Amino acid sequence: MNRQQLFEHIQKKKSFLCVGLDTDSKKIPEHLNEALDPVFSFNKQIIDATASYAVAYKPNLAFYESRGAQGIVSLEKTIKYIKTNYPDVFLIADAKRGDIGNTSGLYARAFFENQNYDAVTVAPYMGEDSVKPFMAYDGKWVILLALTSNKGAFDFQFIKNEETGDHLFESVLKTSQNWGTTENLMYVIGATKAEKLTEIRRIVPEHFLLVPGVGAQGGSLQEVAKNGMNDKCGLLVNSSRGIIYASNENDFAEKAGEAAREVQLEMEMLLKEAKLV
Amino acid sequence: MNRQQLFEHIQKKKSFLCVGLDTDSKKIPEHLNEALDPVFSFNKQIIDATASYAVAYKPNLAFYESRGAQGIVSLEKTIKYIKTNYPDVFLIADAKRGDIGNTSGLYARAFFENQNYDAVTVAPYMGEDSVKPFMAYDGKWVILLALTSNKGAFDFQFIKNEETGDHLFESVLKTSQNWGTTENLMYVIGATKAEKLTEIRRIVPEHFLLVPGVGAQGGSLQEVAKNGMNDKCGLLVNSSRGIIYASNENDFAEKAGEAAREVQLEMEMLLKEAKLV
Repeated sequence: MNRQQLFEHIQKKKSFLCVGLDTDSKKIPEHLNEALDPVFSFNKQIIDATASYAVAYKPNLAFYESRGAQGIVSLEKTIKYIKTNYPDVFLIADAKRGDIGNTSGLYARAFFENQNYDAVTVAPYMGEDSVKPFMAYDGKWVILLALTSNKGAFDFQFIKNEETGDHLFESVLKTSQNWGTTENLMYVIGATKAEKLTEIRRIVPEHFLLVPGVGAQGGSLQEVAKNGMNDKCGLLVNSSRGIIYASNENDFAEKAGEAAREVQLEMEMLLKEAKLV
Repeated sequence: MNRQQLFEHIQKKKSFLCVGLDTDSKKIPEHLNEALDPVFSFNKQIIDATASYAVAYKPNLAFYESRGAQGIVSLEKTIKYIKTNYPDVFLIADAKRGDIGNTSGLYARAFFENQNYDAVTVAPYMGEDSVKPFMAYDGKWVILLALTSNKGAFDFQFIKNEETGDHLFESVLKTSQNWGTTENLMYVIGATKAEKLTEIRRIVPEHFLLVPGVGAQGGSLQEVAKNGMNDKCGLLVNSSRGIIYASNENDFAEKAGEAAREVQLEMEMLLKEAKLV
């Protein structure tokens, strides 16, 4: 999927919502435990209930890998379900990988050839040759960690470069622009650092940004949109727990749909204010 | 396994070799393709042939994950085989994970509770709360990326901190020492940067270092030992391709054993020179 197509999906759905499928087998409603594959059952119903309001889904791989081969099967079924029933959805593997070239190449093969994701999150620490193999696929995207939403972001991401005066996350934004284009590279910018978005937009005016941290982690959607939106929207805002665990009862899917609808309505308003829909 | 026990295994085997199980299903000898699980068959024979000469094994997870659920099954069988037949082996998940706290906690659960690894490699970019959950398990280890063996290491790891004058990898070494101890924290230092080991030992004199990059990537074992060894050896030197692909024929296991034996003999000499055996 290219940038223009992604923007058109955003316009069509009047939403830039990404639903994080952080499905913890210990947190899903009890009655689902009778299903053959409770995690897949849960995901399927969440997806059906929210697909009208979301342009992207982002399974966090830890939640599946922590259950071994069985978890991977639930994940593979989820991906296939999304791609079969909602082919327009932008599908992100939240994997935060990054390794020497030949190894990153194998991860890229896994995510883009075997599993048909549209994008994968990648950690920048190991530099260019750990990131480039993910860019070798037409229409596929790297989403590089730049400024993350967690407290530990302050440990290294704000280190100031003696030579350039840039913070580390700014060096990541600047250096990595030489590795890819606005058509295959996005950045993770945490909503909890939304006040930084104005400066960040000076460095990467056109790139899409994946913004986690709205909701449970405390970031504000309005501030993210105000400081971060560009003329192709340029934002995918993720919400996980606030949507998929909106209820823990039989009505979990209905409530997830309502929570997603609520976010979508706020996004529609923000897109209208920006004259993008 | 604690640091003293690891040192005793090193003394007993007169080796600080870690064998990297980077098993590519496309690179294993053809005749194994008749086996029910060729990758496991390959690993099993490699392990049996090299276990006398190696103190550690390090499956690189990309090689297994790239094959989906089937690959995870091969990996789980490999881990179980090692832990059942060679309980003294130090087992490292080369995963390079790192995510917000609750997610890193799930990865930790996967590696240390479900799968019984002794250590996992972790990327530092997201800071303390992305690393600490891996330290909540007695006798288990984080191996934090500090200075990696690849070319991309020069993109960010050598950025100089305006305030302290430290390179980023030095900041990682210094800051992370507050998160753990010499009993639960090691560092990845690439053998291709062995000339840096003297400085690194000034910052982390006692920590164990996992050193990849000897062999196919061009690092020198002698230089690594000269600059990096401490009074508990303090080194695990990894070799992957140089050992597991020593031959591509029927004699692959025998040749892998010979290659491992050769490295072990060099290590024995270096340990003797340092009066550690």
